[in-house]
Amino acid sequence: MKLNAPYLILIGDVEDSTYAKTGLGIVQWRPELVAGQLRFSGCQVDMGVPDMTVEEAVSRGARSLIIGVAPIGGIIPDSWWEVITDSANQGLDIVNGLHLKLNDYPKVAEAASQSGSRLIDIRVPPTNLPVGTGIKRLGKRLLTVGTDCAVGKKYTALALEKAMQAVGMDSTFRATGQTGIMIMGEGIPIDAIKADFISGAAETLSPDNEPNHWDVIEGQGSLFHPGYSGVSLGLLHGSQPDAFVVCHDAVRKVMSGWEHYPLPSIGECIDMHNRIGKRTNPDICCVGISINTSDLPKDDRKQYLDNLENETGLPCIDPLTEECDTIIEKMRERFN
Amino acid sequence: MKLNAPYLILIGDVEDSTYAKTGLGIVQWRPELVAGQLRFSGCQVDMGVPDMTVEEAVSRGARSLIIGVAPIGGIIPDSWWEVITDSANQGLDIVNGLHLKLNDYPKVAEAASQSGSRLIDIRVPPTNLPVGTGIKRLGKRLLTVGTDCAVGKKYTALALEKAMQAVGMDSTFRATGQTGIMIMGEGIPIDAIKADFISGAAETLSPDNEPNHWDVIEGQGSLFHPGYSGVSLGLLHGSQPDAFVVCHDAVRKVMSGWEHYPLPSIGECIDMHNRIGKRTNPDICCVGISINTSDLPKDDRKQYLDNLENETGLPCIDPLTEECDTIIEKMRERFN
Repeated sequence: MKLNAPYLILIGDVEDSTYAKTGLGIVQWRPELVAGQLRFSGCQVDMGVPDMTVEEAVSRGARSLIIGVAPIGGIIPDSWWEVITDSANQGLDIVNGLHLKLNDYPKVAEAASQSGSRLIDIRVPPTNLPVGTGIKRLGKRLLTVGTDCAVGKKYTALALEKAMQAVGMDSTFRATGQTGIMIMGEGIPIDAIKADFISGAAETLSPDNEPNHWDVIEGQGSLFHPGYSGVSLGLLHGSQPDAFVVCHDAVRKVMSGWEHYPLPSIGECIDMHNRIGKRTNPDICCVGISINTSDLPKDDRKQYLDNLENETGLPCIDPLTEECDTIIEKMRERFN
Repeated sequence: MKLNAPYLILIGDVEDSTYAKTGLGIVQWRPELVAGQLRFSGCQVDMGVPDMTVEEAVSRGARSLIIGVAPIGGIIPDSWWEVITDSANQGLDIVNGLHLKLNDYPKVAEAASQSGSRLIDIRVPPTNLPVGTGIKRLGKRLLTVGTDCAVGKKYTALALEKAMQAVGMDSTFRATGQTGIMIMGEGIPIDAIKADFISGAAETLSPDNEPNHWDVIEGQGSLFHPGYSGVSLGLLHGSQPDAFVVCHDAVRKVMSGWEHYPLPSIGECIDMHNRIGKRTNPDICCVGISINTSDLPKDDRKQYLDNLENETGLPCIDPLTEECDTIIEKMRERFN
């Protein structure tokens, strides 16, 4: 699936920016694709882009309305459906990352059918994906992996791709989750794929490319996660990464939501990915470590990263507070 | 899903026993559940159970018609639908392991709806499976794993369960593929589960049980398989096996259908399962090796197994030609 830009991003009357993270992510990483935001009166959240109505957005060339919120329970308030239907009527594609299906809403479906616009449910995976072949593809690949879920795999991949482009490296962010897909405008929701096709989906996501091109692939879950390890392994084998970056939260000791499981050490995590990843890419190697240090005392952050760097001999960064240059350097050193 | 026995098994006019392996599997492993076979005139395959019509089967208490063939392309000939519809009309559940969906056939659907019988598509997984929790469950579990697909994981699990019952051990075969589900009468088609729910499905398949009860879980794929490793890892983590048996084909050197991938050695396979499996069961151990020796020269088979036994210190058997007693002994020694 590929989204049509520019976007009008609907955040309605969302009360807390936490629930607008899809919209905010697009504005942060792909500002050039955003025409404006659609807010209802009294909305407390502001994404810092022009407010506009559906009519205004259409007149400025907008091609999609993106539902930019993830409300609790995944339910869209009744009051929002009017503006969604109106957008479909005016020919905008409607892009939905929630679990609901747009076609289950007859008025929206009818409006889209009459105007010829598309209803895009990001979480519905493509059909007819192949089983993974394991055949070596041209081009280079980097996968972000983690000691747990929610440790910055998407953020790190986006920051790396941006830094690579800044130094003139040919690179593409490859999205595997709904927020990443919304930001990139395309991708495959890997966790919704039928089990037999996980690595095949990863192969499809990151096809043959120029020898010096890098796909920067958004990781999912963790090989150490009792719930999601299957997703992570299929993605690892299908991505056949040349390089990987381990993502970790500096203060986390147990798996988030699975507190009866201790986190693996960063060393164990590197070792496991090397061992298993070499099945589809014998040259796999770790090129850096990305740490979320935001819950450490401010004065301890630099020391934490320095210590880790000494321990592992790898560049260690917090992508929220600093540049990815040292990881990029390491990649250039290793792959030139 | 749970099937109602006894079964009438439809093999129609199948020309080759290869395509009747579902029916033959049920007759081999669960003869007590089989009322008879339904063959068309001229059918060359005979499963060695009584021939009967739908009427005869119903009058003898049959409760399900099982489509016992897997024809090329998965298509059921038009001529078969008449007897399937008739069975549904007479109140038999219809059990289908092919990719087609019985409800797509209006006459069958209508007949089932009028008689109150069920249309069961084995390949359609249950919905609302949970994400795996990784919480330790009571009871014991054995998982068959493999160096590749199609190396005897299902057969070995069935043979082990039978041998365990023969010596009075409390055990249950847990099916994860369509043939296994047909044989057992229940199970979960693990390869059709959405990626996020693989280990959760495995946990559901093998719930808390008596401390001395063994679930003997049918493995799928291989951790070393470039196409299916995600399925295998989710199943391993969700099964949290206390014991595993490695299945292998004595003459296979490369992965079947993925010939650009060498098979792992049995030692690597044991080591990898110990390393990764301990994440959800720290006490995991290998209790034996199951080898398909049928493609070795007859005179070399015993020597092969003896050599492997000396090398690994583990019981090594070919379940097609001998009993599983040595593996059972090893289990009793290890877990008593």
